Amino acid sequence: MKWFYVAGLLTLLTSSQGILTTLSQSNGRYSYDYATVPFLAEVLKLVVSSFLLWSECKLSTSPRMTTEWKTVRLYPIPSIIYLIHNNVQFATLTYVDTSTYQIMGNLKIVTTGILFRLFLRRKLSNLQWMAIVLLAVGTTTSQVKGCGELSCDSLFSAPIQGYMLGILSACLSALAGVYTEFLMKKNNDSLYWQNVQLYTFGAIFNMARLLLDDFKSGFESGPWWQRLFYGYSVATWMVVLNLGSTGLLVSWLMKYADNIVKVYSTSMAMLLTMVLSAYLFEFKPTLQLFLGIIICMMSLHMYFAPSNMLVDLPVTSKAAPESLNEVAVERTPST
Amino acid sequence: MKWFYVAGLLTLLTSSQGILTTLSQSNGRYSYDYATVPFLAEVLKLVVSSFLLWSECKLSTSPRMTTEWKTVRLYPIPSIIYLIHNNVQFATLTYVDTSTYQIMGNLKIVTTGILFRLFLRRKLSNLQWMAIVLLAVGTTTSQVKGCGELSCDSLFSAPIQGYMLGILSACLSALAGVYTEFLMKKNNDSLYWQNVQLYTFGAIFNMARLLLDDFKSGFESGPWWQRLFYGYSVATWMVVLNLGSTGLLVSWLMKYADNIVKVYSTSMAMLLTMVLSAYLFEFKPTLQLFLGIIICMMSLHMYFAPSNMLVDLPVTSKAAPESLNEVAVERTPST
Repeated sequence: MKWFYVAGLLTLLTSSQGILTTLSQSNGRYSYDYATVPFLAEVLKLVVSSFLLWSECKLSTSPRMTTEWKTVRLYPIPSIIYLIHNNVQFATLTYVDTSTYQIMGNLKIVTTGILFRLFLRRKLSNLQWMAIVLLAVGTTTSQVKGCGELSCDSLFSAPIQGYMLGILSACLSALAGVYTEFLMKKNNDSLYWQNVQLYTFGAIFNMARLLLDDFKSGFESGPWWQRLFYGYSVATWMVVLNLGSTGLLVSWLMKYADNIVKVYSTSMAMLLTMVLSAYLFEFKPTLQLFLGIIICMMSLHMYFAPSNMLVDLPVTSKAAPESLNEVAVERTPST
Repeated sequence: MKWFYVAGLLTLLTSSQGILTTLSQSNGRYSYDYATVPFLAEVLKLVVSSFLLWSECKLSTSPRMTTEWKTVRLYPIPSIIYLIHNNVQFATLTYVDTSTYQIMGNLKIVTTGILFRLFLRRKLSNLQWMAIVLLAVGTTTSQVKGCGELSCDSLFSAPIQGYMLGILSACLSALAGVYTEFLMKKNNDSLYWQNVQLYTFGAIFNMARLLLDDFKSGFESGPWWQRLFYGYSVATWMVVLNLGSTGLLVSWLMKYADNIVKVYSTSMAMLLTMVLSAYLFEFKPTLQLFLGIIICMMSLHMYFAPSNMLVDLPVTSKAAPESLNEVAVERTPST
């Protein structure tokens, strides 16, 4: 049940991410280059993982490390998928508005379930499938635009290309997660060694992105390394620290739990952010947020609770003597 | 599985009720006295049940009929509960607006589950409880006010008395249903004889209500029997016929199925009405309606599907040989 606590911590940290990001802004604008934040987070994760790997090497009798090219070459793939995903996301947003994009983002929960089944060949019960669909429905419900909101674009009015790209985006995002899980569980290499490989490529790809942006803008705001810490406040560093920590926790979950646990964790974090925002930024809680929370809680219980807690199993099945008695006692008044 | 078809028919008829009622209006107003409709429906049900009882008497060797006062005196009780309910409803609406009242009406689903457990001592599994809560959440979701709707009163701004009365109203409504089920299942009297008793008191109470309204208004629109068929169109008669038929179906379900089946039936009917309205009255379907339908479908499946369809039962439990093989085959790739 260690994964339960890791998932709980991930939920707390992820939910504070949105709040920290808001706090790092001044007058609703970033006083720093936001694109430098994910790069620093990758570097942070790489440094932490390298240190942990080094400690592991010192303590134990050499941790398991596969260094042959056949395996190492798989580690840039998640970064490549994210790169494609970012471009698809950009293309999608030329067809649909951000709130429709946000709503479609919940599809990721269902596509993760599908790829989890197809790619990792993990069997889910019907109830677990229903729980996954309900989780997506619950997060969507909480985002339904309320009465009296300013922007009122219809969700069903975007061109068909927008929806197709939105689905593609949800598939790519799920694929990156499922692929990472495949990679982490592929062999029993040390988690820290796997992380070092993952984040080395992550840092390289993020750096390449910053450089590309510089070329695109014709270096009008100078090369990226000059903007690296420019305008950073304590809140900005907290965002970097938070993004790095959540990344490490996700990596842990991919190895010792799975994608579905991660999806629940981040969905719950989204709801928690909305509740916290109600207190911190005087955002008015809506009925749909309340309903969304109930739906997601039910989904969580449906997915993770053991079968005998959910349904009355036939008495012939294996059960502890106390629980058998309980069933017998409980059944008496119903007849 | 006969109850399944009866419940389906009830859903279809109940969903057409709202549409027929709208069609019976001219220019958004009733050209007839709507209070006469439930009275006529009670009379219709009484006539049909009497006829069926008479046929049963002729065909079979005298159907079971308990005529002692100790039993007969229980039959006005549902009518009395509805009478109190109507007054509580009226009081509630002085505190809350109609849309808040409509939202609170979904509480009836949960209170029915609770009274079903407490009063009829029927055991529900955890999953079934979750399904009942989800049904209430699903119907509520479909009713969430969308972006750009005219009236925008907050759901959380009514005085506390309004919510207390709303809860009381939900309890009374559930109590009437649960009590009727208790009555119908109390002995194995002929359904038609039970109906005759139920609808006789129903007709009397409805008549008393019409008379009371006349006294209240000082007979300014004449005695109720003069208004009985005044302004009735074909659509009005359809409403009477529809209300009568749904009443008879509910009665059947109370005897041969239960309150939960009825609650599912009427909730599904509400969603179906909203979908049909989209076609008939060009009411724009919302995202929340779509989400509500998914949630209610999941709930339906969770409540009624057999356990072995939902979760993978342990192989030690009793199962047909084919299904055992299926489990074995299915499990192979997951390991």
